[in-house]
Amino acid sequence: MELWFDEMHTRNVRLGFRIKRELEHVRSEFQDIHVFETYDYGNLLVIDGTVQTTERDEFVYHEMIVHVPMLTHPNPRRVLIIGGGDGGAAREALKHEPEEVHVVEIDKMVVELSRKYLPGIAKSYEDSRVHLHVGDGIKFVEENGEFDVIIIDSTDPVGPAVGLFEKKFYENVKNALTPKGIVAQQSGTPYYHPEEFCNVKRNLSGVFKYVRTYLAYIPTYPSGMWTFSIASDEEIKLRRNISLRTKYFNLNIYRSAFALPNFVEEYCKD
Amino acid sequence: MELWFDEMHTRNVRLGFRIKRELEHVRSEFQDIHVFETYDYGNLLVIDGTVQTTERDEFVYHEMIVHVPMLTHPNPRRVLIIGGGDGGAAREALKHEPEEVHVVEIDKMVVELSRKYLPGIAKSYEDSRVHLHVGDGIKFVEENGEFDVIIIDSTDPVGPAVGLFEKKFYENVKNALTPKGIVAQQSGTPYYHPEEFCNVKRNLSGVFKYVRTYLAYIPTYPSGMWTFSIASDEEIKLRRNISLRTKYFNLNIYRSAFALPNFVEEYCKD
Repeated sequence: MELWFDEMHTRNVRLGFRIKRELEHVRSEFQDIHVFETYDYGNLLVIDGTVQTTERDEFVYHEMIVHVPMLTHPNPRRVLIIGGGDGGAAREALKHEPEEVHVVEIDKMVVELSRKYLPGIAKSYEDSRVHLHVGDGIKFVEENGEFDVIIIDSTDPVGPAVGLFEKKFYENVKNALTPKGIVAQQSGTPYYHPEEFCNVKRNLSGVFKYVRTYLAYIPTYPSGMWTFSIASDEEIKLRRNISLRTKYFNLNIYRSAFALPNFVEEYCKD
Repeated sequence: MELWFDEMHTRNVRLGFRIKRELEHVRSEFQDIHVFETYDYGNLLVIDGTVQTTERDEFVYHEMIVHVPMLTHPNPRRVLIIGGGDGGAAREALKHEPEEVHVVEIDKMVVELSRKYLPGIAKSYEDSRVHLHVGDGIKFVEENGEFDVIIIDSTDPVGPAVGLFEKKFYENVKNALTPKGIVAQQSGTPYYHPEEFCNVKRNLSGVFKYVRTYLAYIPTYPSGMWTFSIASDEEIKLRRNISLRTKYFNLNIYRSAFALPNFVEEYCKD
């Protein structure tokens, strides 16, 4: 007998993982969470039927959502991660030797399950500079501030994450940033959901002077092509050059990730 | 009832397409060929269980395997495509206004089925500059020459394509090129088959002075990250800047496609 978990990328396209066993299935206050042990991708965290992260390829997503904004900032001391309960973004942020990394995760089950089943990702919680806040990121940015970099590492805009893609939220994000502050956010795949990253781009553009989209190859996400959006009132460019231990990211990747195929550029032309 | 075709990317990972119907299933002299009508990707050509091309995303592969070598050459007049029986690489090559495009496809069924079911791809055959040769590409390069660009648009190195990844073949490719000639080849995904593009790189490096790897996002190929290898005795760099009607390729893409993630670079370090 074989056990497969297939994620429906659309009604008509699916990506399947053969699994050794279901390690956990929890219905939390906010969402339906599975952890599977797969054959090829190590442990796999699934929320509401959607792959969040796997032990094998998580490095791409976490390096790209963090190092691009962190190297765009001249000196990031205080970092806020909204979502990111698995701890992976915090782990990457620590490589920049910041003073504080705050993680605001709405669902404490995500943190608990990540600590238990994704220790290589969640190990960042052991670092005293990482401060975990279990709560609503939308509320958190209304009440806190002076962050140099804010990383919005959320699920897709369904369920509890919907508000994290709205203009009102981005206004509060801006208020929570220092004047040269930078925000980055995962914004979906143009192949299946072009409206998603276009919506992020449009909403960020209403609040920040500079907004750009960049790409990374993520084999376990729909289509393999993933967008991130970055915004600031300062020009988006490489401002530091430090040596990082990374498996995906490097300075050539920073420069090239902003090159978009024509069809991606054209999706959200005004 | 639902009908799905799942390609096994590995023993433990699969990508599935919901299909409306099987349009054709032929066992040719060389391989097992299916054409499906899918819900999301238009018509889909499958050879020996492996997705070759879909109407929806074929533009990425065909633009990237052609425009990178064609713009690396200062003035490509004579082009040879080995494999490429669907006609897509020839279609893109024609955008450069060459004098002749020769397509050497071993399996005439691929040409026939492409003409019937993938007319938007196979339409290049109607152009009088395109010359179709049904035969073995390995033999063809031994007997013909004076090509400015040779594009090896084959299946993966199994079955009839094995010889297209060997050093002996690359030596004949070099002899079939003009002195400033350029060869490009699809070389698989580093996520699942790093040995494949490393092997291509090593074998090409034994024959050509300059060899580089570049990448493109192809949602229907395993992992979505696909490598191409390009080689020449001249430095690999952009030599022309012409306006092309493309959906994926542009000059920023040319420049950025050569940026490789660390783990890809490291796979085939000697």
